[in-house]
Amino acid sequence: MKEYEKSKLNRVKRGQNRATYDVEKINTILDAGFLCYVGYIYDGKPITIPMAYTRRKDKIYIHGSTANRMLLSILESKETSITVMHLDGLVLARSGLHHSVNYRSVTLFGSLKEIKNDAEKTEILGWIVDQMVPNHWDSLRPMYQKELDRTIVVEMTIETASAKVRDVGVADEPEDYELPIWAGIVPIKQVTEYPISDEGLPQKMEIPTHILDYYNKNK
Amino acid sequence: MKEYEKSKLNRVKRGQNRATYDVEKINTILDAGFLCYVGYIYDGKPITIPMAYTRRKDKIYIHGSTANRMLLSILESKETSITVMHLDGLVLARSGLHHSVNYRSVTLFGSLKEIKNDAEKTEILGWIVDQMVPNHWDSLRPMYQKELDRTIVVEMTIETASAKVRDVGVADEPEDYELPIWAGIVPIKQVTEYPISDEGLPQKMEIPTHILDYYNKNK
Repeated sequence: MKEYEKSKLNRVKRGQNRATYDVEKINTILDAGFLCYVGYIYDGKPITIPMAYTRRKDKIYIHGSTANRMLLSILESKETSITVMHLDGLVLARSGLHHSVNYRSVTLFGSLKEIKNDAEKTEILGWIVDQMVPNHWDSLRPMYQKELDRTIVVEMTIETASAKVRDVGVADEPEDYELPIWAGIVPIKQVTEYPISDEGLPQKMEIPTHILDYYNKNK
Repeated sequence: MKEYEKSKLNRVKRGQNRATYDVEKINTILDAGFLCYVGYIYDGKPITIPMAYTRRKDKIYIHGSTANRMLLSILESKETSITVMHLDGLVLARSGLHHSVNYRSVTLFGSLKEIKNDAEKTEILGWIVDQMVPNHWDSLRPMYQKELDRTIVVEMTIETASAKVRDVGVADEPEDYELPIWAGIVPIKQVTEYPISDEGLPQKMEIPTHILDYYNKNK
């Protein structure tokens, strides 16, 4: 089992029994989403920006405009972290203290570099789109050079990471189980609704199979 | 219309047409969720922690254990920001560049203080639980003093804030509308599944009305 080394930075202090440093488990959590929260420091304050991402091996890729303050800042300072969280349910206990949520979350630290090669950039942008909807990129109009030129692609090589997962039932104080108070889990998930075709589409164009597949898998 | 003042810190630079500083609009976005992303700086790095929250007037409250590294850090440094985002859909355009998501997001900055009065702490913890599931707190076993003693409640008075909202259709390059490429929106929402009662419940205890109401409203 390959694990990220534990350091001061990534060692989970609260709820250690929920923590894992296992690379494969962390990758599974990353591959289940496409939206991450990127931290950067501006004017001495930590600010968090939601962003699309994709993962390949030990690399995470994010992108944005060449004027994106956050991307320019983290490329310069090299100081960032990336958090991904999937909310799976509410844990409703008999006492307030034992209320919680079920979730899968990951925090990543690593080294950053800008991808400047056009072919590489284009390939990565395709991965980011396909992380949202599989097999979608190949259906699109190819990028113009001027579009590539105004896009920054940032690669993080993951060096340190941790995950926390809670996926069990209610855990109350032993004496509270006698109380006439309801407790349980309310599962939560993110779903898609039926795709809405753009009004500007050429007549009679049907929703492509890969979009319907995505909808059916996530509805 | 009451607005947060625009400053270097909260002025939205990218996608200004999606930005708002309107207090009521920002509060509506905050009240639609219960999970926020709190930024803090550790060892020079910005780290983001997902947390439950509640809002009352211009105050946001979060809580955690007295050993919570993030809460202790932001109380000491006073440097934090809070981000809330609701994902509403995928915007699938004809070109990669115009891919986007529909969303409602808020970023908050403000002053912090610890709430130390027990009655006030208890009331706020109730608000946090009720922000997850309305009318739930009153059904729970009251907190023990020792539970209150090991809980920190942090209040942020919002001083500066901004929101970004994208809630429109696809916006492609004019010349791309002729292409035989499908484009549209895939709506996304967070839903609940039917509550699962804890196995340790006293016999024949039914799921309370307020839990079923919550499920029915969010299913």
